[in-house]
Amino acid sequence: MKALQWKSILALAAVLTLPALGQNKDVNAKRRDDLKKPLVIASQGSFFVGGESKTLPPTPGPGITAGGGEVTVNQMYVQYQIPPDADRHLPVVMVHGCCLSSKTWETTPDGRMGWNEYFVRKNRAVYLADQSSRARSGFDGSAINAVKAGTVPANQLPNVIMASHQIAWTVFRFGPTFGKPFSDGQFPVEAVDELYKQMIPDLNSTLPTPNPTWKNMAALAVKLKGAVLIGHSESGFFPEQAALLDSKGIKGMISIEMPCTAMNASQISTLAETPMLIMFGDHLSDIQAAGPANWNASFEGCEKFVQQVKDAGGDAEMMYLPKLGIKGNSHMLMQDRNNLDLADLLLGWIDKHVELKKNGK
Amino acid sequence: MKALQWKSILALAAVLTLPALGQNKDVNAKRRDDLKKPLVIASQGSFFVGGESKTLPPTPGPGITAGGGEVTVNQMYVQYQIPPDADRHLPVVMVHGCCLSSKTWETTPDGRMGWNEYFVRKNRAVYLADQSSRARSGFDGSAINAVKAGTVPANQLPNVIMASHQIAWTVFRFGPTFGKPFSDGQFPVEAVDELYKQMIPDLNSTLPTPNPTWKNMAALAVKLKGAVLIGHSESGFFPEQAALLDSKGIKGMISIEMPCTAMNASQISTLAETPMLIMFGDHLSDIQAAGPANWNASFEGCEKFVQQVKDAGGDAEMMYLPKLGIKGNSHMLMQDRNNLDLADLLLGWIDKHVELKKNGK
Repeated sequence: MKALQWKSILALAAVLTLPALGQNKDVNAKRRDDLKKPLVIASQGSFFVGGESKTLPPTPGPGITAGGGEVTVNQMYVQYQIPPDADRHLPVVMVHGCCLSSKTWETTPDGRMGWNEYFVRKNRAVYLADQSSRARSGFDGSAINAVKAGTVPANQLPNVIMASHQIAWTVFRFGPTFGKPFSDGQFPVEAVDELYKQMIPDLNSTLPTPNPTWKNMAALAVKLKGAVLIGHSESGFFPEQAALLDSKGIKGMISIEMPCTAMNASQISTLAETPMLIMFGDHLSDIQAAGPANWNASFEGCEKFVQQVKDAGGDAEMMYLPKLGIKGNSHMLMQDRNNLDLADLLLGWIDKHVELKKNGK
Repeated sequence: MKALQWKSILALAAVLTLPALGQNKDVNAKRRDDLKKPLVIASQGSFFVGGESKTLPPTPGPGITAGGGEVTVNQMYVQYQIPPDADRHLPVVMVHGCCLSSKTWETTPDGRMGWNEYFVRKNRAVYLADQSSRARSGFDGSAINAVKAGTVPANQLPNVIMASHQIAWTVFRFGPTFGKPFSDGQFPVEAVDELYKQMIPDLNSTLPTPNPTWKNMAALAVKLKGAVLIGHSESGFFPEQAALLDSKGIKGMISIEMPCTAMNASQISTLAETPMLIMFGDHLSDIQAAGPANWNASFEGCEKFVQQVKDAGGDAEMMYLPKLGIKGNSHMLMQDRNNLDLADLLLGWIDKHVELKKNGK
């Protein structure tokens, strides 16, 4: 963590009210009561963004796939809820990370309210997207069928990422080694088995380049006539990738815990046009994990990226939770015990950095 | 269609009010207005049923799957909404068919309300389940990784069913041949591209026997302290399969458009303990489709099954829509233009055959 980071963190801390951090018992009790009230929805539903036709070859044998024909691939499933007074705020789009689905944002593993409903109760229209090639968005399984049919070799099979419980515990920073939690950890480890059920095979390796989810997120923001995009982990930098393709609809970008891709000056200049917030939790150096996660390197790369955007005149903030006095947050911070306190931080950032600016106040 | 069928159809028709069939313009206008009112939800969320740990072997190379370890498989993702006065009625569980997800029950391809929200507005708690091995329930991709790693031959790959647009059009009975709709067809063919986006690879071939979705549905019904289960197509007979494993929580079974599995006397006797409704749409003989769908054979098999259950003292109904004067319904009847009329038929059946009996009236 470099000194230059302090300035932006202090600036951010200055705009946060203490009750938002959940330090106040009366405020927490009031929130609990508020969250028990019936939820009123003006409209809800689901739809797809993107998708294109692909022609499949006929496969041997009888059955439903025998005839070949066309299928649709690369579409993105989106589920939404709009509260009655949503027009006071911008819609928020949430996109999950590796080996997960939109379940990420729903009921937590220990049964508390997820960010999806909390944001709706805070008068935001919320759109949950399953990444293209995941969950209800489906995937292109034709390479698997081609290998089974013997028309291409087995090494052409996609990488099917199945992240293990052991990987999740350490890479998601529930504790330093598998089965051992951090003493101040915020993740509800007593319910970790429910998190493991959310972890599903990741078939992003079947996708074309660039990842169609980026284009679909940009198109969704245009369709919504302006939206704040939130990405996490694998999708953490997707709001920025979407903005590089088409920033028209993207009014704010929230990136949670991921490596920040190195960008050239032109890209930085484009990204500097949209307010961005990057959030990291705790214990970045405290895990003994196999190869995939070097959280310190990700954090430092993002610090550098944030500074580049600021140097280009952008409104970019690095929100490093321990520096705000918020300790013990895991990688799955939207499911941590203090998840609604963190949601309040995001809501406050959107109000101040995206919506007040938009309204010219 | 056999003569014996008429008796039950007439009996059913007698309990239906004409407005429920959507014949009355005033009633339809009132329904449209009612459906525009804000939706009030007492609670909503998502969780999993079932699932067990499986140990994966280490795979070659670096990366997130390198270490092997355990993953969770066979779990079933469930998303629910409970209206304020849900305790007046039994919860309803909806399970989708082949090559589809719970999207089946949501917003229709042409943007109308799906059965999920309509049932909630009719004061029912609604639970949408993604079948184990599909969508947000994930799947066991370890066989694919084993073939890629060279430890098992390519013929051990799962069958990945990718149903084509061509298959969907005819097997789902939008029209007699691809691109040609039935003149009285109820499916919104102008929005068929949106249906194609819902169609995702089916990996049920990766599942153990018996299908864990059956056990998970039975367990969900127990967890809910009683529920009506609805299955469609591939899952159409799943309510019955679930009841054969554990009928304790299953208070009613609705099976929509599927082959009825041949059952022995003991199985028939068990199934006869729970009220069941089987629903079929129109044009069963009017498609020119490749192998997989012989709707007439399915219908006739189910007629025989219904009669067996009735002979064993059960309350079983075959609801063949054309015999009720309701024409043109496709296989995706929960998305057809008259989908809410059909929902009213199901609600009426539940009220009369499940809930009145339960209440001893």
